[in-house]
Amino acid sequence: MSLKFDLLKNSGKSRLGILHTKHGDIHTPCFMPVGTVGSVKALKPEDVAQTGAEIILGNTYHLMLRPTAELVNKMGGLHKFMNWPKPILTDSGGFQVMSLAGLRKITEEGVEFQSHIDGGVKHMLTPERSIEIQRLLDSNITMCFDECLSWPVEKEKALASMRMSMRWAKRSFDAFEQREGYGIFGIVQGSMYKDLRLESVETLTQIPFDGYAVGGLAIGEPQEMMFEVLDYTASALPDTKPRYLMGVGKPSDIVGAVLRGIDMFDCVMPTRSGRTGQAFVRGGFININNSCFKDDSKPFDEKCQCPTCRNYSRAYIHHLFNAKEILGYTLLSQHNIWYYQDLMRDIRKAIEEDRYKEFADEFLSTNKC
Amino acid sequence: MSLKFDLLKNSGKSRLGILHTKHGDIHTPCFMPVGTVGSVKALKPEDVAQTGAEIILGNTYHLMLRPTAELVNKMGGLHKFMNWPKPILTDSGGFQVMSLAGLRKITEEGVEFQSHIDGGVKHMLTPERSIEIQRLLDSNITMCFDECLSWPVEKEKALASMRMSMRWAKRSFDAFEQREGYGIFGIVQGSMYKDLRLESVETLTQIPFDGYAVGGLAIGEPQEMMFEVLDYTASALPDTKPRYLMGVGKPSDIVGAVLRGIDMFDCVMPTRSGRTGQAFVRGGFININNSCFKDDSKPFDEKCQCPTCRNYSRAYIHHLFNAKEILGYTLLSQHNIWYYQDLMRDIRKAIEEDRYKEFADEFLSTNKC
Repeated sequence: MSLKFDLLKNSGKSRLGILHTKHGDIHTPCFMPVGTVGSVKALKPEDVAQTGAEIILGNTYHLMLRPTAELVNKMGGLHKFMNWPKPILTDSGGFQVMSLAGLRKITEEGVEFQSHIDGGVKHMLTPERSIEIQRLLDSNITMCFDECLSWPVEKEKALASMRMSMRWAKRSFDAFEQREGYGIFGIVQGSMYKDLRLESVETLTQIPFDGYAVGGLAIGEPQEMMFEVLDYTASALPDTKPRYLMGVGKPSDIVGAVLRGIDMFDCVMPTRSGRTGQAFVRGGFININNSCFKDDSKPFDEKCQCPTCRNYSRAYIHHLFNAKEILGYTLLSQHNIWYYQDLMRDIRKAIEEDRYKEFADEFLSTNKC
Repeated sequence: MSLKFDLLKNSGKSRLGILHTKHGDIHTPCFMPVGTVGSVKALKPEDVAQTGAEIILGNTYHLMLRPTAELVNKMGGLHKFMNWPKPILTDSGGFQVMSLAGLRKITEEGVEFQSHIDGGVKHMLTPERSIEIQRLLDSNITMCFDECLSWPVEKEKALASMRMSMRWAKRSFDAFEQREGYGIFGIVQGSMYKDLRLESVETLTQIPFDGYAVGGLAIGEPQEMMFEVLDYTASALPDTKPRYLMGVGKPSDIVGAVLRGIDMFDCVMPTRSGRTGQAFVRGGFININNSCFKDDSKPFDEKCQCPTCRNYSRAYIHHLFNAKEILGYTLLSQHNIWYYQDLMRDIRKAIEEDRYKEFADEFLSTNKC
């Protein structure tokens, strides 16, 4: 196996672990900030590391278009290019190309598409090309190329799509070059249909992936439905491998998913909210654009130890957003990622102390986000 | 006197000094990065301090409109509000309101204007109100309220304007509340007319200002003309007080002005260029948007020790600008301010070692910016 995963402890279905990679260890459950185009938006990499984040996510789709995987490779790989020496996971590009409705054509071979940048040019993503791109980027955790459906979707279509994704998963695995400290994760599909999800798990676990992701969730379905899928999907996955819930999510999504045995998360929410003015605070969130904050000398969150909360008032950041000063996005994004990392620290501590169920019940009954 | 200035050394007309304020010392010749609306654009204050900058400039006009001087005062002053514990100089707002052509009316009393933000609302700036605002902001160095003419301008108009500015200088001084570690600077006007400049110096130096600025330059006139004005203006100012050339400038402007006895500078160039992609390097500048940099693994400037040059390639920053990632502005702005502070360090060292004339000749003959 190319990535070593130590499962340290269980508390109910919740798990505490360490995933070892060539670029460092990742304590799970973990949250990965998203660095779409080779930058976690508005933040220096040291600002991201300071929050406690041990791994970030890069996007194959964005990076293949610019600056291109070949250029990143020529510059020494994504870690060096963006000055982030810690682990990186890359998605496969599947999710993004699927959302290019009208601009893409899916066949058994792969997906032909026109990009949102160079509208006229045609590109092709296949399982083999996606894996090659992720190798060129020097990604520590490569994701299989798969089809991600929107929801709702008819069962027949979901079945055909899931089975193609499973064939693509095998092609992805075969195309992956095994290296010490690097690995590849399979992705469970099957929409909201239990038998399809279980068939997908059954097929995928016959391939010795380094970890298993649950894809096709957090695409608009209610939270209870997502939790229901996780209830039967996560338990069907092997105990010895990390489990990653892709693109999730709100703090309450994460807390509920850890309760069901998930180890890894990523989401643009803390950085996207950082740009719209939404700040996560204990118990919920506030929108700093609200005029009630214009003379509020308190920090975002008095319990937060992040540099933003230690040094700046809500009034100042309200002013920065009002004046459209870039620093506002930086300060708010760092706070939000810190909030997510605090949440993961609290989650890991609760599992460590074998009181995760109580922690989750308390969090879910008092938190509004 | 409220601000103590130690003149340490002369090398020709060039001077080495230390200006002491309540919030710290400033080694002169110095360059002040501009923090217009309470933020040096795209940078955290610690990033600014790391460059070696010991003082920044805040803008009365922008801050009076938002978040308002009263709010900044309520929040503990500008140092605390923006988390910059070092010295701050504020301009008087005069320069900005004068440029609101068609939206402002000048009388002996002051200037009535409509702002660029709340178009319909009328505001009034007088010498007394400008000084009050700067006190509310807790500015260490307050600037007189003056009229800054554009150029070219007829002598008769320049004379009348200069004399009104001198009456306003007296009113500004009288309105200034003397406090230890705080001071007020007078501003020499008179356009490009020698007799007017000398009359302005004569009038101003009868008032015990803590320093003297040269205003009304760098407004489109050729560099030689600016240097000519400085030749006779700077020498006429008292040796014992710091001399500040407002709004200047390009590196070569600064080198030439120090040669003529100027001690302090401010300019938006390094931060504005940081947003347009212009990077200052030894010998000139480059525009990082240029496609020739797309696979250039070198830093902006191999001699620069700034964090941007130590950690990032031109290729990466080219990519960030291409993808419109905020981090690009941050990295380039910090480099450019570092470049300016390196220049000031080199200037101070050359004066210290009594070889400033040689330094300036060499710089001006080899530098293209």
